[in-house]
Amino acid sequence: MPKSPTVDGQPSGDSRRRSLGALLRRVHLGGPVSRAGLAEWLGVNRSTVLALTSELVAAGLVREGFPELTGRAGRPSLVVRPASDRVYVLAFDIAVDRLVAARVGLGGEIQDRREAHRARAGVDLETVVGVLADLGRQLHRSAAEGAVCVGVGASYCGMIRPGDGMVRFGPDLGWVDQAFGAELERRLDLGLPVLVGNEAHLGALAEHQRGVGVGVRNLVYLHGDVGVGGGIIVGGELLGGDGGYGSEVGHMLVNPYDGRPCGCGSRGCLEAEVGERALLDAAGRPADLIGRDAVREVVEAAGRGEPAARDALRTVGDWLGIGVANVINLFNPGMVVFGGVLREVYRGAAPHVQRRIAANVLPVSRTRAQLRVCALGDDATLVGAAELGFARLLADPLGVRAG
Amino acid sequence: MPKSPTVDGQPSGDSRRRSLGALLRRVHLGGPVSRAGLAEWLGVNRSTVLALTSELVAAGLVREGFPELTGRAGRPSLVVRPASDRVYVLAFDIAVDRLVAARVGLGGEIQDRREAHRARAGVDLETVVGVLADLGRQLHRSAAEGAVCVGVGASYCGMIRPGDGMVRFGPDLGWVDQAFGAELERRLDLGLPVLVGNEAHLGALAEHQRGVGVGVRNLVYLHGDVGVGGGIIVGGELLGGDGGYGSEVGHMLVNPYDGRPCGCGSRGCLEAEVGERALLDAAGRPADLIGRDAVREVVEAAGRGEPAARDALRTVGDWLGIGVANVINLFNPGMVVFGGVLREVYRGAAPHVQRRIAANVLPVSRTRAQLRVCALGDDATLVGAAELGFARLLADPLGVRAG
Repeated sequence: MPKSPTVDGQPSGDSRRRSLGALLRRVHLGGPVSRAGLAEWLGVNRSTVLALTSELVAAGLVREGFPELTGRAGRPSLVVRPASDRVYVLAFDIAVDRLVAARVGLGGEIQDRREAHRARAGVDLETVVGVLADLGRQLHRSAAEGAVCVGVGASYCGMIRPGDGMVRFGPDLGWVDQAFGAELERRLDLGLPVLVGNEAHLGALAEHQRGVGVGVRNLVYLHGDVGVGGGIIVGGELLGGDGGYGSEVGHMLVNPYDGRPCGCGSRGCLEAEVGERALLDAAGRPADLIGRDAVREVVEAAGRGEPAARDALRTVGDWLGIGVANVINLFNPGMVVFGGVLREVYRGAAPHVQRRIAANVLPVSRTRAQLRVCALGDDATLVGAAELGFARLLADPLGVRAG
Repeated sequence: MPKSPTVDGQPSGDSRRRSLGALLRRVHLGGPVSRAGLAEWLGVNRSTVLALTSELVAAGLVREGFPELTGRAGRPSLVVRPASDRVYVLAFDIAVDRLVAARVGLGGEIQDRREAHRARAGVDLETVVGVLADLGRQLHRSAAEGAVCVGVGASYCGMIRPGDGMVRFGPDLGWVDQAFGAELERRLDLGLPVLVGNEAHLGALAEHQRGVGVGVRNLVYLHGDVGVGGGIIVGGELLGGDGGYGSEVGHMLVNPYDGRPCGCGSRGCLEAEVGERALLDAAGRPADLIGRDAVREVVEAAGRGEPAARDALRTVGDWLGIGVANVINLFNPGMVVFGGVLREVYRGAAPHVQRRIAANVLPVSRTRAQLRVCALGDDATLVGAAELGFARLLADPLGVRAG
């Protein structure tokens, strides 16, 4: 059933490829738009847009049609929209307590999803990949007749080698140098590369492209669960550094004296001081309790005035504030976004975070940075994984073979 | 005497301007190069390079001629070299203990320099600008007959608004919101804009373009004097953030418990723990002693085995190591460069810094980052200021009016 969206054998120049990619990206991220709007956005004339759009229509990537009824008088003009029902990616999210797979249409809509429970630790590569591949193949089979899969992206809570999706260090599952991307690619057997990204990197991209940070050129995204990850957008681009391992806010040493032990083997990292376990321990919760619901319970208890919960939020909020103050001084960002369980923590501890910012951020940078919770909720990393899956198509719309 | 290097009234397309700029930049930063080398470097054919070179020759920006004798047999081929004796910028460096002005030729050679002593504190804008303008005008007057000044750049140890060179916060001189760039521009009266940059930003650019970090795409530069500044290159570009105030490594909070007071009004910032005063205090040196020579004396004393000096380097080296470990985790850089007085500190405390990196940097990032002292020595910030002065010319070689 799946076939390539391109049967175009002509040589494709870099400039044409870039224009096609820019047009498709605009429609994919921004939704239906008139040809006139596209011409203005690309800075080209209408006949150029007509030619580009026609190529994308012929490749089955976009459609032209009338917009939804707007209630305004007059004849509506044609709009270009993504062929969401025909073109999709598979997206995977290896979350702390579950494995998620989704079919996401061009345009970004999650069309279908499957989840499986995941044990907290001691799960081997083969087991995880087996479950994900099964979920993915179910979603692939249930796609509409004629629909094509153009990419696969996966989010993993660890340090990922960008080239091949190797998990270099994944303390959550205890993985070191596990060929996750290659193995998932082999088991899915779709003839498509599987691109893997760090969950906080992908959460940052998702919030930057589709969430609370649209249009923010410098953004710091902090993702919390058991650990704390960071995804930093500098000048509109994700900060990867030399090897793709940058943005590791969670292992910033904030407590050099009596720091809590960290999953990385060190002590006093931001992750050790503000991760789930730090809050639950500080609130005197049982040692076997873990997860987002447990954190939420502490935040709610603090709201009701429970002293232990309030103290815990003050302590954790202060450490979080130190981490946030440091990244504001370093990155002078327009926005800091709290994702994962840090959404709950920030909601409960905002005054403590803000106090640290007032005390430790240089005044010229302090005024710029808005603090926000993520807009995409628990799906931020999954949405980011889908965008990773779409990246090849958007870079070269007519050059991607479908699986 | 000075006149414009361009009398070209033709409309200049973006693409031609970019090519001219790229060619001039290559000659400016890389020195004499054959036309064939330029063609290969720009990815264009020889006739295009001939046309571009001819325009730059006509504008007096480059010259063609035979290279220095190489000792190799055969007829040497023509090389294109910067017209260093004809085109220059004025560069200024407001250093901790002195004011420096230099005339720097296209190609980067410091042709002449003037220095004036500077009091440590309580110096007002008018006084500083008056001295700098006098030095600058001396250098301008002493330039060769027919030479033209194409730009002015200045390095300042504080937070600078990029648009107009306003000093937003300069604790070293006690300046807040002082119109330094505008005032220096007015007093120089050359009809040229004065571009001002933060000293650590400019040191980073200088080391990246002409120093130890040439070719390193991700680089962290740490500059120490009384304070500690940072300049961070991400993907080849200086990290400015939303307002241009990013890269402030010096105000990363590293010591949240009993931190030393910092010039920013907070406590426990990296600058407070590793600046000159921290080392001299830890070594038990008199409170009125300050400056690079005093720091050098402590490092030398530690080398001779003086216990107080050794302990001081251990303490300061450990804090410096925490700061360096944190930026390596955040930026996954290819290189960390120590400039200003941190050169001396790092030379004396390298084992302590490396111990922290081993303990606190994630293994995947640890292997990448080389630690180096800056190659341009005390001139790093001055060289960076000169590059700031050349920036307009390199962006549009035929469009800049000379002063």
